[in-house]
Amino acid sequence: MRDVAIIGIGHTKFGRASKASLELFSESVLQAIDDAGVELKDIEALFQGAALAGFEEGQVMSAAFSAADLNLGPIPATRYEGACASASIAIRDAAMWVGSGEYDMVIAGGMEKALTMGTLFATRTFAMACHAPTEGPVGLTFPAVFAMAAMRYAKNYDIPLEKLREKMAHVSIKNHKHGALNPLAQFYKKLGALKLEEVLDSKMVADPLSLLDCCPFSDGASALVLCAAEEARKYTDEPVYILGTGQGSGGPLSKMEDLTKPISRISSAKTAFKQAGLTPKDIDLVEVHDCFTIAELIALECMGFFGWGEAADAVEEGQTELGGEIPVNMSGGLIGKGHPIGATGASQIYWIIKQMRGEAAKGNQIDPVPEYGMTDTLGGDFGTLCHIILGRSKGKK
Amino acid sequence: MRDVAIIGIGHTKFGRASKASLELFSESVLQAIDDAGVELKDIEALFQGAALAGFEEGQVMSAAFSAADLNLGPIPATRYEGACASASIAIRDAAMWVGSGEYDMVIAGGMEKALTMGTLFATRTFAMACHAPTEGPVGLTFPAVFAMAAMRYAKNYDIPLEKLREKMAHVSIKNHKHGALNPLAQFYKKLGALKLEEVLDSKMVADPLSLLDCCPFSDGASALVLCAAEEARKYTDEPVYILGTGQGSGGPLSKMEDLTKPISRISSAKTAFKQAGLTPKDIDLVEVHDCFTIAELIALECMGFFGWGEAADAVEEGQTELGGEIPVNMSGGLIGKGHPIGATGASQIYWIIKQMRGEAAKGNQIDPVPEYGMTDTLGGDFGTLCHIILGRSKGKK
Repeated sequence: MRDVAIIGIGHTKFGRASKASLELFSESVLQAIDDAGVELKDIEALFQGAALAGFEEGQVMSAAFSAADLNLGPIPATRYEGACASASIAIRDAAMWVGSGEYDMVIAGGMEKALTMGTLFATRTFAMACHAPTEGPVGLTFPAVFAMAAMRYAKNYDIPLEKLREKMAHVSIKNHKHGALNPLAQFYKKLGALKLEEVLDSKMVADPLSLLDCCPFSDGASALVLCAAEEARKYTDEPVYILGTGQGSGGPLSKMEDLTKPISRISSAKTAFKQAGLTPKDIDLVEVHDCFTIAELIALECMGFFGWGEAADAVEEGQTELGGEIPVNMSGGLIGKGHPIGATGASQIYWIIKQMRGEAAKGNQIDPVPEYGMTDTLGGDFGTLCHIILGRSKGKK
Repeated sequence: MRDVAIIGIGHTKFGRASKASLELFSESVLQAIDDAGVELKDIEALFQGAALAGFEEGQVMSAAFSAADLNLGPIPATRYEGACASASIAIRDAAMWVGSGEYDMVIAGGMEKALTMGTLFATRTFAMACHAPTEGPVGLTFPAVFAMAAMRYAKNYDIPLEKLREKMAHVSIKNHKHGALNPLAQFYKKLGALKLEEVLDSKMVADPLSLLDCCPFSDGASALVLCAAEEARKYTDEPVYILGTGQGSGGPLSKMEDLTKPISRISSAKTAFKQAGLTPKDIDLVEVHDCFTIAELIALECMGFFGWGEAADAVEEGQTELGGEIPVNMSGGLIGKGHPIGATGASQIYWIIKQMRGEAAKGNQIDPVPEYGMTDTLGGDFGTLCHIILGRSKGKK
């Protein structure tokens, strides 16, 4: 296997979009192509994450139509669906196809229209990523799942629920602060200076999670240009290398011993670290899947950044802020930036690379620029997990 | 890249199933595991084709839940969606992951519930694989698309439409004859001795295609065990090697110059032949995507088995029968065997391997057993194409 680099990145504005998801995807691809300084005719295959296009927009086989929309010719174009992790598993596969030597340059990314369909319809739609026979359709939708996870977290570590709500609120405050600085975020210039009470007093959604503990639904797309590492410097002075990837499966909930320690996430992160030859101590920046505030705590512990039960205090103490032990979700995360399901994994990588290039907003940029970054993307209620480790150099492998 | 072998195969009865698609998939996986003589704990990743699970059964992220249903632990489990070609693109990716050396043994296959949803709902659902802005939702469903292709075929080669209907009818007669011999086919022991008039006089669906020109909707699943070729003989005396694969994209219809010469199919077949180091003359058996009779003719010409406009006569002359130039769809194809969308590509490989093992039914088995076989799977209206070339030996590569 040869090394793989990312040489171009694209990202639409997250929020409410009037365009169809295919149009959003093309917009992000054209940006990525332009950023890489390559041409569409150089692209040999397309890897697209999309979770709900059939249900929402009456369009399956979306990857092929994206290839057509971009006039890419008859190249292979494949759609991956792993719920909210769709883009990450598409990117992981793209890295394999380039790493194997089969393709030299490809597009990988994801897209979704998740906001314009409306909230009631959305809740039912997203519940399709729960286990159909036993979960979503009987009423156990995602806010409820993560509320259960929070309850379990409180019980495991003997934290009074009101105390845990305060600790979780710091995730919301941090991620909204970062999102307000991100010009492509859904909440850009909004909710940037939340007070603890505002989070705690926001409308209760599923006890103990209130509205500001939850990420919004979003429309958006993001895309990357991947190429063989040895060719990367032909195109850019700032290639970013894919050092390791992992993917894991889990669920359904009825089979899980402890919602706060999903084996899918632990296994996936371990694989990625092993492949990269790195440990959590080496990582300078992570984008984790904060669909709910509690999810960020669970992610950080499963990935090994904090011991079991220690992430809640770490967030409250500012260890996950700019200048802290490990900055987390400097993009705003799903909570501050928005969550267009099938696009999220690509967006996470986009913002890691913006940081590595020193192109984050004022007050948001890590200094010196991070050497190693990592993404964590979660599909459904721990059904699909994917981790990708990125480096400015080919790393310690 | 190392060579990849298929060492185990599984296939449910196609037709109407009372089980959910996840259960059908598990059934086919357990058969494949048993056939290979391996254990579930040997499986390192799962690759699943499924086109419509969200829309039909309210279940996305189905691959992860299949891994859970099979107690496969936290291994990567990925769903691929390329409409009717979903299983083939999943298998192609699985071959890449094994070929690269990343995994030694994996499961790949597909599943669908396409019959139990009912015909009216089905037509709308399948139309999601057309181009949403310009095709299916405005009424151009699949029978209409292939009727247009037949019209174009008649025009290109100056064949009176009634004559073409007769020629196409021979595809139906042949595939129904084969399907009636296939114990897992939807039409097993049914429609095995159709007369020309019965096909011509069957209910008109979309002129010039009548009911017996069309494949049925089906429920079903099929799965394969793939491993590194060098390990294959540890498990079986009859490994089948994946010698070449190709994938292509095309459409939408508004961009296609000639529906009978889809560039997606031509490009994909060419890639597969090149990778295998073989030509159409080397192939002893093909399973092609005969969603409609005309589609079989188009497939055979695009793949290079017959010149442009020559497949219609070849079928009428019996060249695609047992004992003919190139036996086509000995399983019954989609028309005789049934078409559970996301499972079809895996089923095609299953029946090529049954022939290679000499395990086809009496009156259906090619003698001597075929050395090289090839599958052709079509997603949507030429949007996604996939070809896989199989051999009993590692081939001329």
